[in-house]
Amino acid sequence: MRTQVVIVGGGPSGLLLGQLLHRKGIETVVLERQTRDYVLRRIRAGILETGLVNMMREAGVADRMEKECFVHHGTCISYENELFDINFKKLIGQNVIVYGQTEVTHDLYDAREATDGKTIFEVEGVQIRDVDSDAPYVTFTADGKDQRIDCDFVAGCDGFHGVSRQTIPETVRKEYEKVFPFGWLGILSETPPVHDELIYANSSRGFALCSMRNDNLSRYYVQCALTDTVEEWSDEAFWDELKRRIPESIADELVTGPSIEKSIAPLRSFVSEPMRWGRLFLCGDAAHIVPPTGAKGLNTAASDVHYLNEALAQYYLDKDSDGIDQYSEKALTRVWKAERFSWATTNLLHRFPDQSEFDLKMQRAEIQSLHYHETAQKWFAQNYVGLPY
Amino acid sequence: MRTQVVIVGGGPSGLLLGQLLHRKGIETVVLERQTRDYVLRRIRAGILETGLVNMMREAGVADRMEKECFVHHGTCISYENELFDINFKKLIGQNVIVYGQTEVTHDLYDAREATDGKTIFEVEGVQIRDVDSDAPYVTFTADGKDQRIDCDFVAGCDGFHGVSRQTIPETVRKEYEKVFPFGWLGILSETPPVHDELIYANSSRGFALCSMRNDNLSRYYVQCALTDTVEEWSDEAFWDELKRRIPESIADELVTGPSIEKSIAPLRSFVSEPMRWGRLFLCGDAAHIVPPTGAKGLNTAASDVHYLNEALAQYYLDKDSDGIDQYSEKALTRVWKAERFSWATTNLLHRFPDQSEFDLKMQRAEIQSLHYHETAQKWFAQNYVGLPY
Repeated sequence: MRTQVVIVGGGPSGLLLGQLLHRKGIETVVLERQTRDYVLRRIRAGILETGLVNMMREAGVADRMEKECFVHHGTCISYENELFDINFKKLIGQNVIVYGQTEVTHDLYDAREATDGKTIFEVEGVQIRDVDSDAPYVTFTADGKDQRIDCDFVAGCDGFHGVSRQTIPETVRKEYEKVFPFGWLGILSETPPVHDELIYANSSRGFALCSMRNDNLSRYYVQCALTDTVEEWSDEAFWDELKRRIPESIADELVTGPSIEKSIAPLRSFVSEPMRWGRLFLCGDAAHIVPPTGAKGLNTAASDVHYLNEALAQYYLDKDSDGIDQYSEKALTRVWKAERFSWATTNLLHRFPDQSEFDLKMQRAEIQSLHYHETAQKWFAQNYVGLPY
Repeated sequence: MRTQVVIVGGGPSGLLLGQLLHRKGIETVVLERQTRDYVLRRIRAGILETGLVNMMREAGVADRMEKECFVHHGTCISYENELFDINFKKLIGQNVIVYGQTEVTHDLYDAREATDGKTIFEVEGVQIRDVDSDAPYVTFTADGKDQRIDCDFVAGCDGFHGVSRQTIPETVRKEYEKVFPFGWLGILSETPPVHDELIYANSSRGFALCSMRNDNLSRYYVQCALTDTVEEWSDEAFWDELKRRIPESIADELVTGPSIEKSIAPLRSFVSEPMRWGRLFLCGDAAHIVPPTGAKGLNTAASDVHYLNEALAQYYLDKDSDGIDQYSEKALTRVWKAERFSWATTNLLHRFPDQSEFDLKMQRAEIQSLHYHETAQKWFAQNYVGLPY
């Protein structure tokens, strides 16, 4: 088999890249380790930056999103009983939208099928070969048969644990990492969201987040110890803890119910450089992880897709390889900005085991800068809605 | 003896308060532990915010400053060989001025003498008494005699090591502190400044600062270990190290010469709350210390003076004690902002012993935010020229 671009990984970034390339007449094959159903069951983020929204439009997969999404003109931050709003619209004339990553992936699969894009599910043993030559290929097993696809390029969209990053020799790769000393315990519940915007809460008991997917699907998180287990947290204990971390006026409005999903995620910052090796390009979690505070995970994967889509279009349509040569640097420049914002926002809102009373005062002073100073709010807003590509 | 306000400490904040109160017909006595000459020999900061400049005008002591000062429309930041300017004037239409704290103090002493303000030098054993009653007084020894001044209020402007803060019972005081794991080795030299604006340098060898007092008086600093001693640092070693930490194009222009002063200062953040106890008010270093990065020490003392001057004027002229009651909260609100900026700027520009490679990337990302994003620059500029009182 032969194609122009093999996309390793059928999550949202691989699929979005596939659709964008398809619109330009560039042929792709997507390889996915799981089944389609499995991919669509994964609960992930739900805040989309304008840049990603625009790419969804460009990819021709925005119709359902435009109808069903919620536009958020701002976000709320609380510290103990103080609550304030950062109004993106008023500050910078922009917004973000709430539309679950699961829905994005769903729409992208529908579009891929409608356009006869080739996706091979349940592939095993993927190996990315000869990407340092002009004739790369990918081998794998599917349907019990060993297969090979020859291609011009490989897009590694297979996440943190995928094979793509590992394909770059260790002597070439440089990795940067920070593991935060806490996790997020999250639940999904079929209850109306407590507020029409997200609430990021800094409290003396730790961070909490009130988020949502739609009118009757809420997503809540509380900062927890890395040693905590889901089994230790009954729904009741979760709701009690959440209420203690958000302003009383909000807690009083909280509608609780049984959780339909409950999980603990660690918080990590991670970047692997470079993001290109020969004819292999890394996209999204394959190259970088952000802590979820600030909702930059999917959005930063999308910014990689933006640069890679541009680079490949330039290569195929303009016969110009400049974009390819600059991909790693361009993508990483924006990645580090998203890493900075996610790291700063995590530092701003969580309690750390080694925080001194002075450190807590500095954290409070940073939050109060956001509460009372328009320029600080504006800088937060620009980062939250996404810095320009 | 009796006066309205006893000012403990004849440094710039005590003297400025004295002059401002004098203009409103409020009588003060200043008590200073050292001689006038000693006070005027102390080398201190040299960047004045607009707020302080305006107070100097209000106090009627701005004539020489207006003639001799240098107006700085911005400041420079470098990281390795990259150099960029944050132009306050262009960003927010404001500036700072360069005029040595020594000169400020000089002008204030001249004005105090011209207006027959009473200053008692070389006082010893100052005790601040009964400030929790309506009849406070201060006792001390001067000219070999035990003396007592009865008063309405005491302004504690006697610095970090002074008696004023210690007068507030430990059960009432709450102190916040951070000691940074490095110091600043500074020299003063009679050489022309290397640049017409300050250069704050982040380099892999540590922080450096190129500052100045006038056309032929330069002030330079390098981050050093807390265990370093002045004796270990020859002038030559200092200049060599400085050159390695600033962009090559700047280092090439550096005019070196013998140091006329050389000292090592530790970097510390410190705040003591509250800033008022009964009829005692703390001002400046008596209540708080900032690390010098960002030049907020004298300027934050001046903001305390602003609030205290307002409060006392309200008390004596309007017979209204609201300002007095609110002094601590108002002063501290701005103090914490200056602490935040000084702490953040110190974190931004120094090398820390425990910094990981990820931490260094975050520091670089923060510097690049300032380099490339106008809103981040604007927020820095607003803090550097001084947030509104």
